[in-house]
Order: sequence, then C-alpha cells, then structure tokens
Amino acid sequence: MGRPQTVKVRDVAREAGVAVGTVSRVLNDHPRVTPELRERVEKAMAHLGYEVDVTAQSMRAGRSRLVACAIRDFDIPRFALFIKEAEAVLREAGYTLLLASTTNRADIEIGLLSAFRRRRVDGVMMTLSDEQHRDVREALSAASMPVLLIDRDGITTLDRVTADHREGARLATTHLLGLGHRRIAMLVGDLKAFPSRSRLEGFREACSAAGMVPHPRLLRDNVLSGEDAYRATVSLMALAEPPTALFVAAMDTLGGCLRALRTMGIAAGDGISVVAGSDSDLAELHAPPITAITWDLAAMGRHAATMLLERMRGDEIEGGRGLAVPTQLIIRGSTRPLPS
Amino acid sequence: MGRPQTVKVRDVAREAGVAVGTVSRVLNDHPRVTPELRERVEKAMAHLGYEVDVTAQSMRAGRSRLVACAIRDFDIPRFALFIKEAEAVLREAGYTLLLASTTNRADIEIGLLSAFRRRRVDGVMMTLSDEQHRDVREALSAASMPVLLIDRDGITTLDRVTADHREGARLATTHLLGLGHRRIAMLVGDLKAFPSRSRLEGFREACSAAGMVPHPRLLRDNVLSGEDAYRATVSLMALAEPPTALFVAAMDTLGGCLRALRTMGIAAGDGISVVAGSDSDLAELHAPPITAITWDLAAMGRHAATMLLERMRGDEIEGGRGLAVPTQLIIRGSTRPLPS
Repeated sequence: MGRPQTVKVRDVAREAGVAVGTVSRVLNDHPRVTPELRERVEKAMAHLGYEVDVTAQSMRAGRSRLVACAIRDFDIPRFALFIKEAEAVLREAGYTLLLASTTNRADIEIGLLSAFRRRRVDGVMMTLSDEQHRDVREALSAASMPVLLIDRDGITTLDRVTADHREGARLATTHLLGLGHRRIAMLVGDLKAFPSRSRLEGFREACSAAGMVPHPRLLRDNVLSGEDAYRATVSLMALAEPPTALFVAAMDTLGGCLRALRTMGIAAGDGISVVAGSDSDLAELHAPPITAITWDLAAMGRHAATMLLERMRGDEIEGGRGLAVPTQLIIRGSTRPLPS
Repeated sequence: MGRPQTVKVRDVAREAGVAVGTVSRVLNDHPRVTPELRERVEKAMAHLGYEVDVTAQSMRAGRSRLVACAIRDFDIPRFALFIKEAEAVLREAGYTLLLASTTNRADIEIGLLSAFRRRRVDGVMMTLSDEQHRDVREALSAASMPVLLIDRDGITTLDRVTADHREGARLATTHLLGLGHRRIAMLVGDLKAFPSRSRLEGFREACSAAGMVPHPRLLRDNVLSGEDAYRATVSLMALAEPPTALFVAAMDTLGGCLRALRTMGIAAGDGISVVAGSDSDLAELHAPPITAITWDLAAMGRHAATMLLERMRGDEIEGGRGLAVPTQLIIRGSTRPLPS
C-alpha cells in the first residue's frame, strides 16, 4: 500500500543514546523516567518523526475500525442522506464513520489527510476543493489508506462516486428552452469543482443544441451560500434586460433566490420561471412548487461505502473506478411558457 | 481527571514472560519478532487491557488535537450552524473537530465514548438518547476526557449547553390560546430527551395558566422524522373533533406536516393554524409563512466549544456548568384567530 518507511523504537533509542526499554517507558508515561531523559527521547522522536502504529494494535485487539468522511460543509440537508446510508453500510461491516468539514480549503484537506494517516484511519471518503491542486494531489499520494472521492471526477487513479450533474443541467435547460425562454440566468457554485463544472457543461450543451449562445452577463458563478444567491438574484433582476428564467444550479441556495424575488415583489412561476439545482422540502412545498433536479444521494452513499470497503479489504481491483448515479428533472409549477 | 489506572509495558512483559524490549518490538511491528512471541505478547495485552497513550505522544510532537462531536443525526439543517461555529472556535485553538452520529442509540453512544477514549480524543461534546440510562452514565464516568452535553440538562456534574425550549413552547402555546384556539395538537419528539420534555412542559404550563386541560388524544410524541409527522397529522385531522391548531414542536418535521395538510386539501393558516418548533427556509418562505420558534444555534456552538476548551486546558472549575440560550417566537401568517 506504499506506506512510508516507519521509524522504529530502536531508531529512537539509538538517536537518543538510550536503551530501547527507556524509550518504551517514555512512550508509556512511566513515572520513573527523569524529565531529562524524557526530553532527550522526545526530541529524538520529533527529530525522526516517530509514529506509533495504532491501527495494527487496535486491529489485533479486535477494536472497531474507523472511516473518515471529509466534506466541504455540513449545511447541505440532502447530503445527510448520503452520510446516513454510508454509515449504515459501514457500521454493518464493523466500521465507525467520523465526519470532518474541510470548509472547502485545500490546506485543511491536506491537514486532515495527514491527521487521518497518523491516527491510522482505515479509509477516507472526501470532497476536494480543487482536484488540480498540486499539494492536495501530493497529500493524496502520500495517504497510506484508500481514499474515495465524493462527487469529484478528476483523479482517475482513485475510486469516485458522482452524480450526473451534466445531464441534470441539460434536462433543466432544455425544458426552459422548450418553454420559449432565451434569457436564462444560471447561478452556479465553484467552477473548480466537478459538480458546478458539469452543470455548466450541461447548460451550454443544451443551449448549443438549440442554436443559442448563452449571455455571459447572465452567468453567475461562485454562488456558495443563500446570501450569495440573494445578491446574485437581486443584481440579475436589476439588469436592463433581466432574465425570464433562473436556473439556481448551486447546491442549497434556492432559499436565498426566493427570498430576493419576494423582496422585489416578483412571483416565482408567474413573473419568472425558476429551476432548483437540487430538490428539497422547500422546493416541493413552495407555492408554486419549484421545478427541481434530483438524484439518489442514499444510493451514492451506499456505493461509496461499498467501494471503499472493497478497497479496505484489499480486493484486487485495477485502477480507479468511477460510478455516476443518474439525475432526473421534476417538473413543477415554477416553470411556465414565456408569454408571447 | 480520574483516568482509570493504565497498564504499563512492563506489566505486559511480566504477564507474557518476556523482556520489556520484546513488548515494544511487538508494539512497533518489528520484523524480527517471531509469530509465537507476537501472539504471546498480544494475548497478554488483550488480557490486561493494555492501551497505548497516543495523546501524550501526539501532544509532545506538537500534532493537532481532536475534539469529537457525537449527535443523534446529521439531517437537522439548522444544526450545521452549531457545528460551524464550534468548529471555528476549536480550529482557532488548534483542534480538529470530528463528527459521529449516534442514531440516538445508547449502545452506539457507549461504543463511541469508548472509541474516543481509546483514540485519546481530547474532548467530547454530545447528545444522549437517554440521560437516565445506567450504562451510558457508567461510560460517561469512565471517560478520561471532558464531556460536554449538547441540549441535555439531566447530568449536572457535566457542562451543558441547552436552548430554553420550555420558554419557546410556552410562548407558542400562549400565542395560540390568545387567538382563541383550544383544540391544540402537539407533535413532539422523544420524551426521554431534554428538548422534547421541556417543550411539553412549556406547553402544559401555558395551558394551565389559561385554565385549560390539554386533550391527551391531541398529543403525539415520538415524532422523529418527516414521515412520522405526516402520519401524525393525517390521523389528527381524521379525528371526529380535529384540532384547530398544530404545534409541530419536533425538530425538522414541518415538511411532513405541511405535506399531509396539502394532501388532505387543508390550507395552513386558513384551515388550521400551524406553529413550527424550529425555524427554517421552509417555514420562512412557505405561503403563508409559518410562525416558528427560533434560537441562536451558532451561539450554542460557540459556548459549547469555549466551555470545552476551558475544561481541556484544565482550568479549575467547580462542578458542571449549565448554559441556556433564549428562544423567541416569530409570528407569521400561519397562525390566525379561531373563526367564531
């Protein structure tokens, strides 16, 4: 598994100029170690980068094993479906799932990977802020445990579980074009990440199939929160030629967009057509209900856990595997024909 | 800190009848240990319950420290505000926050506490399925790290951060009574847990202040999901004397209740008054908007992290501390006077 060469207790003993038994007494907080001796041994450990192999020990003692899941953020309600299902599959197999948030920062992703390695976490599933980031890629290569990517598709040496966001965006855009809309605004997240990039691709694909060139002023990227969506919606509707349809493709930002429309006295459906990039209670129970893209997050969680379990068992699998769950469009009252 | 007496390497050596150096070679996966010797040492370790002190080592080497947060479930959207804020405070202090879900089961809570102890997690914040559960209480006493309770108030030897759910429920019920409602149905979660218990108390308090005895058939407890709320609402509205107001006090179950009303062709606000036990995008953007109880989850997260940091630093604090953030009622269009 390409684990880096480990420093042994006897290396520490040699470096510190003490007996092996002394090192192990320091390691075990033995009360009879003098502070001087302790300091000498600790310096040697720090210098050599000594690490105790916790997993080997915990496995032998039949202790529960760990899988870590590191995601951008915890405030995407539907993502709980992924976690819940992955957790159930892993628990069944004797693993505890721990979550950590990366807040979408590469340095935290790298720090977590290293912390997981040091604590001998058995497997990791995670999102990445930027799959092209050189240091992140290096940290992934240095990981001694299997890593599976969640909704990222750029590193083909790793297992990946994604949703077919491109197809979802293509369906949504084709639907709006079919209703006669041409000034379609798109709110999308971080284009460095796979989901937003694929959504934009699907949007462009549908436009070009209809012989239409999307207006660059109607595209807003880096919409990452409800507040971002609020601001983007206000500024779009203030244009001299405002959009007639809003494709709110960024995850979990529909609330911000609807709040902005309400503030401006514009009715979703009547005044402007609205499509949500992901379904929610809000989309379903809004008046009118909001047309939305949906996919099976529980299935994604199940696939991710199952694929990671296969890797942790050491099954012989050649290369990284990519699995994409399909997306569907649920057409509701918020998308209407453009009045002619 | 009451850490249980730890087994030392020399105890293992004695039990296995080998030298201390041999134990440390086994611990460090030394290649020159024979399988027989390894087995003998491992048996001795298992027999004595030997545990390596990882924290002491990781702290010496200046490695990042861990706080674990174990909660019932990840699908409560507003709870992300708690996590986000707690995480920011902890990260600032050099800690990584890991999350685990208990799925509200005592055996999993106990297993996690033991896993956290073994992995030398520095501090824990958690919910509990049942504060009176004897084995859970035992596991809490055996924990060698500080544990803070999230929205639980029954174990006063521990630090607790709660919301004043009783006051929120009292305000909501008083508001409905003031509008003339008498047949008020209440949907509430697990009464073994502090939040649901306090909400019921607040409800009863308001009723008795108005000289009213709540009708037992209109109380539904153990409402834990949107599906539960859907079923409870359908069965309540099918009663010979259906309620004129619904107090959906269970966390994040408003969607299920509104879905049931829509299916039955009953309009929230017009046909029946509705109060949500916790605010959400759905409550705010629904037509009509739903009257809701709210409290500052970010403040709860900040307090929890700060109090836990004080404990982890070993500050001298006598006894467990309890901190309750206040609750407010946001009155919106879904609560209207009872037609006379």
